Formats: sequence, structure tokens, C-alpha cells
Amino acid sequence: MSFRAPVRDLAFALKTVGHPELLRRAFPDLDDDTVQAVLEAAGAFADNELAPLNRKGDLEGARYENGAVTAAPGFADAYRHFVEQGWNSLSADPQYGGQGLSKAMELAVFEMVHAANMAFGLCPMLTQGAIEALTLHGTPRQKELVLPKLVSGEWTGAMCLTEPQAGSDLAALTSIARPDGKGGYLLSGQKIFITWGDHDAADNICHLIIARTPDAPPGVKGISLFLANKFQVKDDGSLGPRNSFRPASIEHKLGIHGSPTCVMIYEDAEAELVGELGHGLAHMFVMMNAARLQVGVQGVAIAERAFQQALAFSQERKQGRPAFDDADGMIYGHPDVRRTLMLMKAKIEAARGVCLTTGVLADLAHRAESEDERAAAKARQELLTPIAKAWSTDIGVETASLGVQLHGGMGFIEETGAAQHYRDARIAPIYEGTNGIQAMDLVGRKVRLNGGATLKALCSEMALTAETLTEVAELTPVGRRLAAGVAALERATDWLVSADNTQALAAATPFLRLAGDVVGGWILGRQALAAAGASDPWLATKGALARLYASQVLSLASGLADSISENGADDLAATRAAALAS
Amino acid sequence: MSFRAPVRDLAFALKTVGHPELLRRAFPDLDDDTVQAVLEAAGAFADNELAPLNRKGDLEGARYENGAVTAAPGFADAYRHFVEQGWNSLSADPQYGGQGLSKAMELAVFEMVHAANMAFGLCPMLTQGAIEALTLHGTPRQKELVLPKLVSGEWTGAMCLTEPQAGSDLAALTSIARPDGKGGYLLSGQKIFITWGDHDAADNICHLIIARTPDAPPGVKGISLFLANKFQVKDDGSLGPRNSFRPASIEHKLGIHGSPTCVMIYEDAEAELVGELGHGLAHMFVMMNAARLQVGVQGVAIAERAFQQALAFSQERKQGRPAFDDADGMIYGHPDVRRTLMLMKAKIEAARGVCLTTGVLADLAHRAESEDERAAAKARQELLTPIAKAWSTDIGVETASLGVQLHGGMGFIEETGAAQHYRDARIAPIYEGTNGIQAMDLVGRKVRLNGGATLKALCSEMALTAETLTEVAELTPVGRRLAAGVAALERATDWLVSADNTQALAAATPFLRLAGDVVGGWILGRQALAAAGASDPWLATKGALARLYASQVLSLASGLADSISENGADDLAATRAAALAS
Repeated sequence: MSFRAPVRDLAFALKTVGHPELLRRAFPDLDDDTVQAVLEAAGAFADNELAPLNRKGDLEGARYENGAVTAAPGFADAYRHFVEQGWNSLSADPQYGGQGLSKAMELAVFEMVHAANMAFGLCPMLTQGAIEALTLHGTPRQKELVLPKLVSGEWTGAMCLTEPQAGSDLAALTSIARPDGKGGYLLSGQKIFITWGDHDAADNICHLIIARTPDAPPGVKGISLFLANKFQVKDDGSLGPRNSFRPASIEHKLGIHGSPTCVMIYEDAEAELVGELGHGLAHMFVMMNAARLQVGVQGVAIAERAFQQALAFSQERKQGRPAFDDADGMIYGHPDVRRTLMLMKAKIEAARGVCLTTGVLADLAHRAESEDERAAAKARQELLTPIAKAWSTDIGVETASLGVQLHGGMGFIEETGAAQHYRDARIAPIYEGTNGIQAMDLVGRKVRLNGGATLKALCSEMALTAETLTEVAELTPVGRRLAAGVAALERATDWLVSADNTQALAAATPFLRLAGDVVGGWILGRQALAAAGASDPWLATKGALARLYASQVLSLASGLADSISENGADDLAATRAAALAS
Repeated sequence: MSFRAPVRDLAFALKTVGHPELLRRAFPDLDDDTVQAVLEAAGAFADNELAPLNRKGDLEGARYENGAVTAAPGFADAYRHFVEQGWNSLSADPQYGGQGLSKAMELAVFEMVHAANMAFGLCPMLTQGAIEALTLHGTPRQKELVLPKLVSGEWTGAMCLTEPQAGSDLAALTSIARPDGKGGYLLSGQKIFITWGDHDAADNICHLIIARTPDAPPGVKGISLFLANKFQVKDDGSLGPRNSFRPASIEHKLGIHGSPTCVMIYEDAEAELVGELGHGLAHMFVMMNAARLQVGVQGVAIAERAFQQALAFSQERKQGRPAFDDADGMIYGHPDVRRTLMLMKAKIEAARGVCLTTGVLADLAHRAESEDERAAAKARQELLTPIAKAWSTDIGVETASLGVQLHGGMGFIEETGAAQHYRDARIAPIYEGTNGIQAMDLVGRKVRLNGGATLKALCSEMALTAETLTEVAELTPVGRRLAAGVAALERATDWLVSADNTQALAAATPFLRLAGDVVGGWILGRQALAAAGASDPWLATKGALARLYASQVLSLASGLADSISENGADDLAATRAAALAS
């Protein structure tokens, strides 16, 4: 179960698909040496402090006793070291104590954190969401007294959205915040699935909560965003009395046992408005986009962890007489095993590239030189975010499942550790907007709303890469398959833009898969181009991974495009649930 | 979490794809009323006695204490009722107390048992393996004293193959059986992963064990099959002293907690030879083929269970404004949700049909009238067995995973029950020969060995069905897609037969998937033909399911065939494990 943070892979990905020349202009200090140094230090922390706690966190988990949550064994100490070493504040604004680093770099660091210990990584990930919300929408007092504590990591953040009747559909929420007559609010209600909503690893916990105000209109427009701190914050910044909210229980979950998932009860909790009344959902969505990308990175991370374990096992386990004689008789010598491992690796690198690219675009959306560049980056960032989230987390589940499979019977035994990844990975396609919600977002807001323009522009760029690939002898098959994939995606996009709403929704999930498959092929193609002609075996493998992905994944693109336009919406419309019952 | 055994679906599947006219000739008593009565009675038992124990078995599991295993709470009583009602002996030979029923019928019954409680179902499933082995190869004494007790279910069977160093590669086993000088053997060694190897639900446990004899040649030819009973069996059939083997521990597993998975230690255990010296593996393979098909059925079963739960949830959960207005505002009205559910159902019916068809072929291989018919049935049974096992169990995992997903956040909470199916389902692609082993078996022994003849014959038959479908207006798209799928499978088969061994092995897994996808489409096409023109909504849905499967699954067949011939074996051969490491 040993884990080694994929520093080399991340550095290579940032260099080849991370638009380093653009990033360098936005972050002049971000030279190769700095990138390498940051990744190595974070990798060492992940390997030495976080990874060893992963199984312990799974076995013993967070505990709920006497109305309070205790973090899993070792997690509080690890969290203290994490913030002491400055990993909590990489991308935060220096004016609040942050390091002003690139988001893409931060994502690379967090991939290693999540791979080492996904349950742990959720805590700083949610603090980041709170930091973003207060940076954009906080009052001066919140920015002065709360934000720096979140940036330093002395306090942590929690995002409080879901209620029993309001999951994907937040408009259905009923928590209510009544003006207290002194400019503040008294917030009451129940929130569920509140990750790290209570714990003992930090001095205070800042809850960002969406709730209604008494006279607000129904639906989305009646929702506002509030801040309620576990311990109230006095004007001098010191902690006051305990606020009137508490965890009622923590969930017994399939995985990520080290992360306490709380039911929270608010009973006239003292709360402050964040941003504008009635704009709560919009404010929350700013955070959610960042969180969605982070969850995509979790998909990559858990896949990487599962892959590493399976690769190690394949080199230690002897069974049968392998057809390849270069593996010392170990099962890595079986073509089917090797094919499976290489395809796992190819998909991980593709998903990693999609996520990092989206992170770079997030950077450029803020920091690119011209207004036009910023707008273009933002549009593409928004297009890629649901793909990064859903496609990568599906790969996380698939890879973790194959990781169990490659261990044979040992994979099903909990002590082996592969099963934990399979359990942990399963949450990522669900939270921060289910993958079905991502697919609806992609086809609706990101593609149909602008007539497919943003995606078509990306397709043109990908088609150029395909041409370049075709001209490199050993990458010609990749170029051909990528070109066919792009053509299939364009065909599907044309269909999608002209389809009616129901047809588009019926085809949403396969459309997202096709888009992810093709963009992933583009990423691997660019990596292979960057490595072309190299004699180093690790670099030379980039070509092999791109070819394997092209033949095994891109080969399905045309059929997938057919499955999108022949979506069967009429049959769906006509089928009652009773007709599917046994 | 309520479960209803899919009696209607099973009866329909047996009637439409189960070659009922052929079966009727082999089993003259098997009329429609009998089939219906057996399925209903078994379904009631599954619903009322087994399903309610499923979660309890997961939570509390089997226990190992003081060197003995106690079955999960309620399991011993349920087992007693199971055998009292005669479910243990459906297909066993009447001369040993069995009911001589069709294997296909027995499979249908076991699908309901496994769906209700997969951990429970494993116990009688392994007894069946022991029954088959002794029926075929037992000594007269074994047939007289042991076999009837296994058939009645008073005693249970265990199959003892795996050792720590010998999993997929049984030739590596080291357990040894030394002649005791009195015609028997003293068997010593350690076996792992012994399902229901010890428990307190029956009076005796009959271990069928493969081991070496002292002077046997190395490798497969030195392996023989032995019977060792937990309590020795005296000549009058009564139980003698405890034999010298014992469970050393039970495994802490990802799922099927109600099924004790034992490490067994044999220390000069008294054992008897079964069959011929040196033919142990061949004898065991007879059982394993039956067990493989049963495991395929488990894949169908767990998928059915997960599907039922997701379908029920989709009719109770309100979120957002669904595009279809026929679902009372519940999420069943969202096109993406409905598409997912219908595709789950379609794949379940396809996999069920593949398994039942294989079961019918197993019946006909024994009971068809002419030698030629029996030989043809046997060849097709052997071709379809690895597909039934691997393709169905992959669908089991995929469907259970989607079952969690459709519940959103609730799916990740253990109390919901969807997570148990996701955990339980994961073992089926592993045991009784991993799905990778099945793929190697398919491409090697079942396709290449006879130049693809058996598969090509099936393709011709499927192509005829495609023609028939094309002539029915509402099924024309199914016919077109099936014809294209069959053509793709034929193309891939031609390639496979002419490929070298390494290429064939590199393409084994996608080849099995393509074969399963196409055969599954053929099953659904035949079901749709049988239901064509029906006005009953449940029957009318068969057409919709076939169309959806055709557009969403068969559409990928041509691309899959490409992925098989462009398998990248050269890249695989050239890639060292070190070049994949981080």
C-alpha cells in the first residue's frame, strides 16, 4: 500500500499541457525550478505524513460522541503540520496572507494530497471554497477577521447546502435566516452531508450556509448566503461564545471514513449575510465551480493511487506462464494485465491533463493580459469544468474497480487496501453535483446556450493537433483516431444544438463521455508530441500510451456520436416506471 | 430495500430465449404451468426468507471464534428451510434423491436466491459443485453414503482449490496427499478463500480438495481430486470422529459478509480419492464450468437487486423539474435518469438471457436426442460459459455502481443498502476464474482452437435474427444495429483466428466484451420479436429496451472490433513496468 506522489508526472503534465508560456506571463515567478520544488515538497508531505494515515482513517474513522466530532486518529496532528508548512494558502490572495500562487499549481498539489488521503484532503478543500466566497463577497469585517484565519488554516470552512429534500435541487431548501434587528440574522434549519462540518482539528469552523429570508420570493431568488462561525468572532478577532449550532450525528458511509459527514442543526444560530440578499445560489456557484474541479482532481488522485498499487502487485505476483518474458514471470508479463495497466495509466494522464488545463484556464480567466483572453479562458474553463468533474471521477471509479480486479482474490480482502480505493472513489461522481447534473450543465449552459461555439473552437484547435500528430511517423495512428474523434464530437455537437430540450437531456451523459474521451485523446496526443523522439524509456512511453488510448478509446467515438443522435427520447418518454418493474 | 423476485421476467426469458421447444423434448414434464409454479414458489421463498436477512448478514456477518465458524444470524434457520422445501436438489439425479429438473430452471431459481441474498446463495451453489463432482467421478461408496446427503442438503460441500501461491495458476499448488496404506490418503496443506469452508448450518461439510500425490509429476498432471469430510463417515452412513482439518480464520472482506471465507488447514486429514489419479484438475473443471455459469447468474442477480432499488428510489425522490411530466415530479421524469434505468434493465435482461441460454445448452448437451445435437449444444455451451461469467459479472458491477449513483448522496450512506450491492457485486468478476482468465479461455480454447467455427455458426444464426428484426417496422433499427454488430464480431473473429498468440491475448478482454455485447443484443432482439405487437405495456417495453440497447451499446460494436485488431501488442511488449511508475 505504499504510495509515491506522482511528482514527475505532474511536472510533465504542467509543462506539456498546462500552457506554461501563458502561465509564466501571468505568474512571472513560476519558473520550472519553482514548480519542481513546490511539487517535491508537497509530494514528500503527502508520502510521509498523509498516506500512512489513510488506512487508519478508513478503519477507525471520525467519531461522534457527546454531541461533538473527533477527527480520525492522527488527522488533527497532520492538519497542524499541513497548515504550518503553508499548504493551505497556496492560491489565496497575499493581502489576506495567501501566497498568490497559480490555481493549476494548487490543483497539482491537491492531487497528491487527495491521492495520499482523500478523506483528509476534503478538509482544506472546503476551506478553500470558503476562502473564495469571502474573498469575492465578504464584508470588510469578514475579510479582516475571518478570511485571514481561513487562509492561515487556523480555522476551517464548511459548505452547507444540502437538506434532506434539497440535494441536486437547492431551490427546494427551507432553512431560514431571520433578521435579528441588529444587522445580523438568526439562522435555523437542518443541513445534511456537511463534510468536516464539525471536528477537533482547528480552533474554529466557519459555516457558509445557504438559507431563505422570511419575505424572500420562492425558488432560487429567495436564497441568500450566510456565514455562521462555530465560535463567534469578537471585534478584536478573538473567539467568543459557542454559536447555537451543532452536529446531530455523522453518517456511516461506504468510504472516506476519515472525513466526518455531519448532520448539522442550526437553532437561531447567529449568522451574517455574505454578498447580496437573494444572490446566495449565484455566490455559492462560484465556490462550487472550484470545488467541482477539485473533485475531478480527486477522481484522478484515487485512480493514481489504485493504479500504483495494482502496478506494484503485478510485479510481485507470480501466476501462470506470461506471454511476455520480460517480467520475471510476474503477472505484469501477461498481455491482458499489461494492457489493463497501460490503459489505466493513459486514462489517468488524460484526466489529469483535463483537470490541470481547466485549472490553468481558471488562472488565465483572472490573470491573462487582455480582456479578450480572459473572456476566452473563462468560457473554456466553464466548458471544461463539468467534463473535468464527471469524466475524471468516472475514471476514478473505473480505475479503482480495475485495481481490485488486478489483485484477484486478494483485492476483495480489506487488508490489501485496494478495496478502500474502490469504496472511497465512489463518492466523487456524486458530490458537488452528481455526474448527471454535470452532463445537464454541459449540454445546456455550456454548449447549447452559445450554439456550440466554445466547444467548436476547441474542436478546431484539437483538429490542428491531430494534423500535427499525423505528420509524426510513430504518432500517425493517434492523429488519425483523434481527427475522427474530433469529427464525431463536432457531428454530435451539431446534432445537440439543433435537438429539442428533451432529446438533448436524454443524450447528456453519452455526450459528456464523448467530449471527455476526445479531449482526453487530445491531451495524450500533446504529451506524446512533447515526448516524441525521446530515448528515455519513461518519455518514450507517452507515445505508447497515446496509441493505446487512440485504439482502445478514440476508436469508439464515432459509435458514441451515433448513440447520442439515436438517443431514443421517444421510447424514454413512452416508458412508465411500472413497465420496468419485475 | 424491499426486493421482489423477478418471476415474470424469468418466465418470459425462459419462454423466449430458453429454447422451450427443445427443453420440452428433453424434460417432458416441464410445461408452462410447472415453470410458473416453481418460479413462484422459489420467488416467495427468496422474498420472504432470504431477502430480509441480506442486510443483517452484511452488518453482522459470519463469525470466527474458538476455531469454528458461526453462520451469520438467521442463516442457519433459513438454510434449514431452504433444504426442507427442496430447493437444494432441483437438478440432481433422482437416483441420489434429486428432482432431475432442468439446469436452466435451477439457474432461474438461483438467480432469485442470489438476488435476495448472494452471501447465502453461495452455500448451496458450492454444494452443487460437490454434487456434480461426485455424480460424475465418485466411488460407489461416495455415491452411496455422501452424495445423497449433499443432495438432501443435510451436508454441504466446499470447493478447495486456491493456495496462497496458487490462484489463477492452480498448477502451482503444493498441498499433498500421501497414501495411508489402507487405500486412503492423508492430506496436508493450507487452502485459502474457501467459501463456506466451515459453518454451523449443516451436520457435515464435504471438502473437495485438489492436491498432489508424493510421486506425481510436476505441473497439472500431478494433481488429483480428494474428498475429506469434516466428520468422518462410517460405513453405516453415520458420523464418526472429527477429521483433522480446521478453519484458521475467516477473511475480512469488501462484501458478501454473510458468507464465511475460510483459511483451511489440513493436517494429515483423512481423504479419499475422487476420480482418477492425476486427473484432479480436469475433474474440478467440470464443476468449475457449472460454477462459472452460476457466478454469471450472480452478476445478473445483484444487478437486478440494485436496479429494483434504484427504480423504486426514482419514483419516491423529488428533485428539480423533470422534462417528462408523467412521473409525478419524481426524478424518474428526468430523461437522464430514465435512460440510465432503462439501459440498466436492458443489460440485465441481455445478461439473464445469455446465462439462461447457456443453462439450456448445458441441459441439451446431456439430454438432446441425437449425438450431433448434444455435441453442438456442448460446443456452444462451452463457448458461451466464459461470456456468461465475465460479461454478466461486469454488468453486475456496473449496474450496482449506477444503483449507488442514482441515489445521489443517499447512495453513499450504508443504511440505504445500495452500497452493499456495490460491495457484494465486486467479487463476482474475480472468483471462479477472474474475468481476465475467462477472456483468455474464450479466445484460446473456445475460438482459436476450432478456427472460430462455433462462434461463426452462432453469428450466422444471429444474422438471421437481425434480418427478421429488420422486417418488423418498429424493430428495424434493432435489426440494422444487430446486423452491423454481428458483422463486427465476424470481422474480429477472423482477425483473432489469424493473429499470433500474444496479439490474441492482448485483445482478449475487448473481444469478450464485443462478443457479449452482440450476443446480448441478439437476446434482446428475440425478446422484442416475441413481444412485437403486444399491447400490454410491460411487453411493449421489450421493443423499447431492444432499441435503446441497439443505439447505446451495439452502436459501439464496429469501433470495438477496431480496438481488437489494433490491439497494440507491440507497444505492450515494449513497455517495462518501470516506465509506467510515477
